[in-house]
Amino acid sequence: MINKLKRILIGKPLKNEVIKNEKYSVFWGLPILASDAISSVAYASQEILLVLYPAIGYLAFTQMTYISAAIIGLLVILTLSYRQTIEEYPNGGGAYIVAKENIGTFAGIIAGAALAIDYVLTVAVSISSGVEQIVSAFPQMKSITILLCILLVLLLAIGNLRGLRESARLFGIPAYAFIIGMVWLIIAGFIRYVNGYVPIEVSPKAIVEPITIILILRAFSNGCAAVTGIEAVSNAVPNFKEPARKNAKKVMLFLAIIIVVLFGGTSILANLYHIVPGEKAVIINLAEQIFGRDFMFYYVTATIFTILVLAANTAYSGFPLLVSIMAREGYLPRQFDMRGDRLNYSNGIIILTLISSLLIIGFNAKVTSLIGLYAIGVFISFTLSQTGMFLKWIRSKQSGWVNKAWINGLGAITTGVAVIVIAISKFGEGAWLVVFLIPIFVAIMVRIKNHYTAINLQLKCSHRVLNKVNKVHENYDNIVIVPVQSINKASIQALRYAKTISRNVIAFHVATDEEGKAKMEKMWAETDINVKLEIKYSPYRKIVEPLLKFVRAQDCDYSKGETITVILPQFVVNSWWQWLLHNQTRLFIERELLKQKHLVVATMPLQLKGDEVILEHKKRKK
Amino acid sequence: MINKLKRILIGKPLKNEVIKNEKYSVFWGLPILASDAISSVAYASQEILLVLYPAIGYLAFTQMTYISAAIIGLLVILTLSYRQTIEEYPNGGGAYIVAKENIGTFAGIIAGAALAIDYVLTVAVSISSGVEQIVSAFPQMKSITILLCILLVLLLAIGNLRGLRESARLFGIPAYAFIIGMVWLIIAGFIRYVNGYVPIEVSPKAIVEPITIILILRAFSNGCAAVTGIEAVSNAVPNFKEPARKNAKKVMLFLAIIIVVLFGGTSILANLYHIVPGEKAVIINLAEQIFGRDFMFYYVTATIFTILVLAANTAYSGFPLLVSIMAREGYLPRQFDMRGDRLNYSNGIIILTLISSLLIIGFNAKVTSLIGLYAIGVFISFTLSQTGMFLKWIRSKQSGWVNKAWINGLGAITTGVAVIVIAISKFGEGAWLVVFLIPIFVAIMVRIKNHYTAINLQLKCSHRVLNKVNKVHENYDNIVIVPVQSINKASIQALRYAKTISRNVIAFHVATDEEGKAKMEKMWAETDINVKLEIKYSPYRKIVEPLLKFVRAQDCDYSKGETITVILPQFVVNSWWQWLLHNQTRLFIERELLKQKHLVVATMPLQLKGDEVILEHKKRKK
Repeated sequence: MINKLKRILIGKPLKNEVIKNEKYSVFWGLPILASDAISSVAYASQEILLVLYPAIGYLAFTQMTYISAAIIGLLVILTLSYRQTIEEYPNGGGAYIVAKENIGTFAGIIAGAALAIDYVLTVAVSISSGVEQIVSAFPQMKSITILLCILLVLLLAIGNLRGLRESARLFGIPAYAFIIGMVWLIIAGFIRYVNGYVPIEVSPKAIVEPITIILILRAFSNGCAAVTGIEAVSNAVPNFKEPARKNAKKVMLFLAIIIVVLFGGTSILANLYHIVPGEKAVIINLAEQIFGRDFMFYYVTATIFTILVLAANTAYSGFPLLVSIMAREGYLPRQFDMRGDRLNYSNGIIILTLISSLLIIGFNAKVTSLIGLYAIGVFISFTLSQTGMFLKWIRSKQSGWVNKAWINGLGAITTGVAVIVIAISKFGEGAWLVVFLIPIFVAIMVRIKNHYTAINLQLKCSHRVLNKVNKVHENYDNIVIVPVQSINKASIQALRYAKTISRNVIAFHVATDEEGKAKMEKMWAETDINVKLEIKYSPYRKIVEPLLKFVRAQDCDYSKGETITVILPQFVVNSWWQWLLHNQTRLFIERELLKQKHLVVATMPLQLKGDEVILEHKKRKK
Repeated sequence: MINKLKRILIGKPLKNEVIKNEKYSVFWGLPILASDAISSVAYASQEILLVLYPAIGYLAFTQMTYISAAIIGLLVILTLSYRQTIEEYPNGGGAYIVAKENIGTFAGIIAGAALAIDYVLTVAVSISSGVEQIVSAFPQMKSITILLCILLVLLLAIGNLRGLRESARLFGIPAYAFIIGMVWLIIAGFIRYVNGYVPIEVSPKAIVEPITIILILRAFSNGCAAVTGIEAVSNAVPNFKEPARKNAKKVMLFLAIIIVVLFGGTSILANLYHIVPGEKAVIINLAEQIFGRDFMFYYVTATIFTILVLAANTAYSGFPLLVSIMAREGYLPRQFDMRGDRLNYSNGIIILTLISSLLIIGFNAKVTSLIGLYAIGVFISFTLSQTGMFLKWIRSKQSGWVNKAWINGLGAITTGVAVIVIAISKFGEGAWLVVFLIPIFVAIMVRIKNHYTAINLQLKCSHRVLNKVNKVHENYDNIVIVPVQSINKASIQALRYAKTISRNVIAFHVATDEEGKAKMEKMWAETDINVKLEIKYSPYRKIVEPLLKFVRAQDCDYSKGETITVILPQFVVNSWWQWLLHNQTRLFIERELLKQKHLVVATMPLQLKGDEVILEHKKRKK
């Protein structure tokens, strides 16, 4: 039944041959790769204001303009830097790869861990913000905020488990629709203002505290969310139509321009219209003041919601791919590198869904709370990636390397400073969690890698070992031990099998009292089974220890490949509660036996029918 | 390490021969069996008052006297009835056995389920009440109430896991100390009152509601807690010295007298002294007013606490025994009938500890909340037991049966009415939970019994099956399949073992793409292993399905006992997280294979060293 549900939700399994990638033109590549970056317009200015306004009141609006300008400056540096990465990594220059190749494995793992954390946060922040927009427009839905978020995450999970291709139309059209709507909003806003619109007077909020550096830095850190996601283009170079690098660089440039227009524009408008952050999302508030509750208001609400969901979806394509690469290299459990029925990395999708859902629930789907954890991961990966590029130029010294090193060096320094600023200014707001989690994840990944390395070293075969296979003496009969607690179909079946694999079979019985011993001896004699019976008396009612002792006491030449086989029957029942009623001792025995060397535990299943056999038995009796 | 801790806490394992039982005289039997019944004096009157006082103010005291009289009447009937049970069941007449023998299996199970629930509640109520007494005397301990309760439960659990014998002194002396203290309290109380003690005037609490029948019945239901536990004597007849029945009947009588004196006495005193129920436990409050903060006050506090802990302990001897009997007859999982290292039914003890701890935590260790669930189970078992006795007399018609039937019939009717009263009047206070749980438990027990019956029917051996063992054709070679995903030490070891048990070995490889297939074929040829290799191409990346298909396609004459063996290597690693990194696919394959008939899964353990092999390997390289 679970299987059927799975088929309905995620569809039929796909063959390997289906994998192929659509190649992007500039026109369609832009919207597909842009959603994460441009969607942050929905919360970046708002979260700047939310830091400033409660502290310095109406002065917040002017300060925001300066901060936005600084962030746009950062964006310009990043764009220039990443265009160089695109040029050098035509096969995709994710931070993990760039850092690993140019700085070292360890830097690569850190970048990977930081990126993985930020992908999770992208889902949580984007979905929470998307629902926040909707709730701002339709306040009656406020009570089901978290439910809506979880449903959206599940929808994304199912879509991606089905293997949602990033098809041009599905992603491109809503992205363009959003951009057009926002541009229209900005233009209309300026026109209205120029025509003499007087903003509703902000209730003169008192200046509670002075403008401190830490306050401005906190606001700046929140605003940094605006540039997250621009690294997407450099990851996706091989997905572009030829000339791939040129096209990718074009897209990078256009993307930066769009962010500048949308983020800068809305920041200025929020200032002009004195939008007080609070109950309503800033953009929705702005749209309401500019358009009124008109068609365009609903259009902006709908497209901003859609772009945020698409932004969450980019994490759904990025995260599973990232963890699969790291799993393939042995830093994460191998399960993450297995493609599911529909050819996607289903384990990565499931983990992403679980953790981001927990985050949404834990933080009550509040963007303002989640933003404290956000951006730091991306900026760590920015820094490592730019540092890697810088080192690359320094080492290669190819033509024009000085200029290029300058640009990436500047990128590394600015993003590095941003990391420190974010970590310190938002430490109390949740950044501490990320600051602690990254080294923990790195340590886990190193241990996993070590473990896999240790296993592979031990599994390697020398020629000596290989030759052993052909040199087994086939006429030797291994010792086969069949623990028998009573004479029944299961033990008989086990004994029968034992005799087909060896002529050296011993039945082993543990008696917990003298009567039991006598009874077993009598029964064995009566049934006339031609197998040697060994009875051990166990006064402490232990079953496992006497068996282990007996196994260890056997005379076996392990070097010749002689192996002891212990046959354990296992009841196969139909439901979990029936399972709990059996096999407990069996599991315990198996676990202890498997610690022995040169021993095989043969599990003999006995398929049991359901309780309806009682009825059958009663019928037969009649 | 866990094992060591276990040894320190519960001691060395004991041999079977240690089981023996101390036989009780009347003098020592009384206190040992009495603690559950007499300890309820600590809360019975108080819980009557707690129902009445908030509703009808000072009128509560007079009403309590009437209700106490009714409960004492009930006690007299029960005592007469149970003396007859003692006479008829010299081997112990628990409700389960009496109901099962005389009414039917189903009634027995219901009595068993009801009793089991009440044992759990006895622990929760007694321990909560014990701590309540302490906290009443020393209010500064209020904040650690729940912690104290849990510690006491754990102490009882450890004591019973060690195999606490119900030794005469350990139990008898504190019980007598308690009885003496209480009698002294009652006498001193009356003397003080007669000498003209004027109780502190109760702030004239208004009569909030009229005296309704439902109010009186709720108070009565709470008071019924006073008679729970008196069935203990009839369960324990075989533990008495000869003449066992006569001694048991004497103890029953004395026990009833003690309850009448203590419960009746404290009820009257609470009335005379106008003890308002609330912050302080009623008995502690009474002791403070009568003795002041003197030696006797602390003496009463200490002994009342001790007797309540001992009462909880009676559940620790009753519950595991009850569930072991029911498990032996197949109504509960067999694990409950296994004696642990120290010869006690450790699983029963553990379950009792878990559930009663959860109850204490869930109900905040408040006796008033727990009492809503209490007593109904005991009264159901009273009713079934008395009904059973009644039917026994009707059927046997032995001399004097009419009188005896009258007494047990009256017992059945009064307790039956009490069940209905308790169920209805306390339904909203928690009785509903018990009312629903009992049928659920009964249904579970019936299903478990059916399952075990079905298994036993299927395990029974006919002679035809028995003879098969000796008729196996030993020269036939079973098909042995070794799934091989790559050539490594594990697969080589598996192949080597396979060849010792059969000359018909097939290595089986699943290729998920064409390259993999070619690669495997090449490697196999190079390594020159003289085993047939079968490669299946699996375009959907499934591993299990092709293997299952291959297994099913084998030509095997099952009727001759021919069996397919599949050898699966298993990594044995050192810690749980390493375990998570492996064996997942293996477990899945094993589960699917075990659904096949005539198939054995041989598990070949490969003990892996820790990650330190990397260091060793590096050293060796140098």
